[in-house]
Amino acid sequence: MSLLPQELIRKKRDGQRLTPEELRAFIAGAADGSIPDYQVSAMLMAIFFNGLDDAELGVWADAMVHSGDVVDLAAIAWPKIDKHSTGGVGDKISLPLAPAVAACGVAVPMVSGRGLGHTGGTLDKLESIPGFRVDLGIERFVELVGELGTCLIGQTERLAPADRRLYALRDVTATVESVPLIASSIMSKKIAEGIDGLVLDCKVGRGAFMKNAMQARQLAEAIRVIGEAAGKRVTVVLSRMDAPIGCMVGNALEVRESIDVLRGGGPADTRELTVGLGAEMLLLAGVAADAADAAARIEDALDDGAALEIFARLIAAQGGDARVIDAPDEVLPTAQHRDLITAAHDGVVTGIGARDVGIAGLMLGAGRRTKEDDIDPAVGIEIAAHVGETVAKGEPLVYLHHNGRGVDRARELIRAAYEFGDAPPSQVSRIIEVLR
Amino acid sequence: MSLLPQELIRKKRDGQRLTPEELRAFIAGAADGSIPDYQVSAMLMAIFFNGLDDAELGVWADAMVHSGDVVDLAAIAWPKIDKHSTGGVGDKISLPLAPAVAACGVAVPMVSGRGLGHTGGTLDKLESIPGFRVDLGIERFVELVGELGTCLIGQTERLAPADRRLYALRDVTATVESVPLIASSIMSKKIAEGIDGLVLDCKVGRGAFMKNAMQARQLAEAIRVIGEAAGKRVTVVLSRMDAPIGCMVGNALEVRESIDVLRGGGPADTRELTVGLGAEMLLLAGVAADAADAAARIEDALDDGAALEIFARLIAAQGGDARVIDAPDEVLPTAQHRDLITAAHDGVVTGIGARDVGIAGLMLGAGRRTKEDDIDPAVGIEIAAHVGETVAKGEPLVYLHHNGRGVDRARELIRAAYEFGDAPPSQVSRIIEVLR
Repeated sequence: MSLLPQELIRKKRDGQRLTPEELRAFIAGAADGSIPDYQVSAMLMAIFFNGLDDAELGVWADAMVHSGDVVDLAAIAWPKIDKHSTGGVGDKISLPLAPAVAACGVAVPMVSGRGLGHTGGTLDKLESIPGFRVDLGIERFVELVGELGTCLIGQTERLAPADRRLYALRDVTATVESVPLIASSIMSKKIAEGIDGLVLDCKVGRGAFMKNAMQARQLAEAIRVIGEAAGKRVTVVLSRMDAPIGCMVGNALEVRESIDVLRGGGPADTRELTVGLGAEMLLLAGVAADAADAAARIEDALDDGAALEIFARLIAAQGGDARVIDAPDEVLPTAQHRDLITAAHDGVVTGIGARDVGIAGLMLGAGRRTKEDDIDPAVGIEIAAHVGETVAKGEPLVYLHHNGRGVDRARELIRAAYEFGDAPPSQVSRIIEVLR
Repeated sequence: MSLLPQELIRKKRDGQRLTPEELRAFIAGAADGSIPDYQVSAMLMAIFFNGLDDAELGVWADAMVHSGDVVDLAAIAWPKIDKHSTGGVGDKISLPLAPAVAACGVAVPMVSGRGLGHTGGTLDKLESIPGFRVDLGIERFVELVGELGTCLIGQTERLAPADRRLYALRDVTATVESVPLIASSIMSKKIAEGIDGLVLDCKVGRGAFMKNAMQARQLAEAIRVIGEAAGKRVTVVLSRMDAPIGCMVGNALEVRESIDVLRGGGPADTRELTVGLGAEMLLLAGVAADAADAAARIEDALDDGAALEIFARLIAAQGGDARVIDAPDEVLPTAQHRDLITAAHDGVVTGIGARDVGIAGLMLGAGRRTKEDDIDPAVGIEIAAHVGETVAKGEPLVYLHHNGRGVDRARELIRAAYEFGDAPPSQVSRIIEVLR
């Protein structure tokens, strides 16, 4: 066995299996910087081509987990289950989901990310609530998970540092789209949270990273392999990401919609995803008798105010202005303009391209082109005409909430995103398949 | 067309053809350092897997040539032909070859390399002659090629700088063994010398980089493609590199053998390669009627002292002690010890593993493990019993010329290198095939 980085790259390049010692040595070197960037990126490209087999994948992800600290949640008696989404447009599900699941007796220790490109990020949405802090530190995170059943913070330096290094390199070396690299990136961060299990919401479709269900199933399988090796329960939900989720795309706008869902209302598909993913989390935690029971409990938590109560306490505990629950219009930032885009002709909306809508939001300032961009929490897209609805010429399609930036481009993108036909498409559910 | 490096990497990764503009932008960025190492290495690995097609290869190599200066040899009226070897053990052919070809009216502007690993380098061999300088600068190089018909120097900062960057990265990212990368590396440096044509001595066999003739033919084809795109004539000679060439392996020892060849003597195979490669250079230059005529001219130059005379003038012009020609024992460094290894039993030598012999030399100090190692010019291996010879128990196989370093390990390697049988192998010629 050689531990020279170039020899490890050569083995992977030639399709040979790396030993556990070799994989651990490589990840350790990537995490502590002793293996230079150019060798890490050559290895990533070799993995892009030759993959990691199941045995390699389990060790690779485990080495990433142990490149940093693993949060100790042993003092919390509740089962600990998290949810991760591969990224969508209008995907605010974590906001109503975490309190709803916590209200059902399952702890949700959630370390989230920021938006990039056409997809949004949970941290950006939460930060649109004035005062809300996502940099609490692990100690306070553990305390709040214990007290409230959930807490939502950002990635720290000490959780899976190998992933931070690999992710930064993958982004600039065209090695993002590799199933084992995606799966190990997701799982290393989540396992480091100290969870017992994970529900992965794998988005499929035109607005998603995975364009078809086959790719999504490959990712699901890799996630399962890593989970099994780590002794973590995993459920993968494949859900459709063709049209944006719900009505709102944009940070403060999505907080509003989340509060609606936490009041038992909100758009049908946002609620459906919240209930569906929440039910899978309860099943994974072993606190529900079956899927119907699990779904009923989440619905109750949304309808009886239990989830909203936890969300309010969470906001206050994380420094945010909890009056947002009752007076979102007063507390949340509001864009100066709300411009209407109307239908140019009569027809049935047969599709709304999520990617175009996401990029339209980006143009208005709701997202980031690069990691360094600032975002405008107030702006975004409000969808008035949804897929399957019949509109007459001149009726509202979308409202652009904006502060003067990127409006023309956003308008063009919205026009391009809307597809019309004669009859509504047949499919109704967002959830395609559940792989337990 | 995107010129973002990661987009170019992605295209190559996905098997798409890069445009000339994209290839030139990438090489320019690699040469000037504006594309960071990690992106260059990811591209190299993508090329390792997906290759470069003929159109890409010609542009890639041309961009490498023009990443620096091209030597202007227009003032020299002679045809200008160089030879390059892919690296062997005991391969001192450039030393007798360059003066012999120059003696036949063909200029040989030769920019050479150093040894690494089990293979030696022309510069190291020349530097074993006291005072010999290989860092003359391009101006003096051009002058000497004009005056003597040949000059042998080392790579400069300004010749194909892109290759220096790529080569350094390939070495540490397991991307050396890629036919288009090997071919473009060789050709960019050689075309930058200002030559009209090149004879490539492509070594094939256990002691060579290319293990079989199929790989060698792929390299020959890539060399041909680049030569054609650049308007350079190219001949590829496939030659056997199973046993070391000639009797001597080690720097000063190989200079001695070269002088023997330049006196019309020397081992049969060293002379055969010198004559064979030299004849191809004359043919490529268009100064010989046919192969037999070309070979006869080289033989004459070796036998009548014309080549030796040029070598003596070359040594003096490059600062070396030209008395080495007549008194090599006095001028060249000599090892303190000359230990005999004898045959352990009677038999016919059926093989001498060149790689083991090369590594034995390395152990004694004749070569470099890493680029930073110092070499000992005096040490090396002197082969007494060649392939096909019958030896009795106790008769000499090899003499180790050493200064006390690495002797035990070298002895073991020599024992392992020698193969014995009952009958000599049938094959006699070093030259397998000539691809004109």
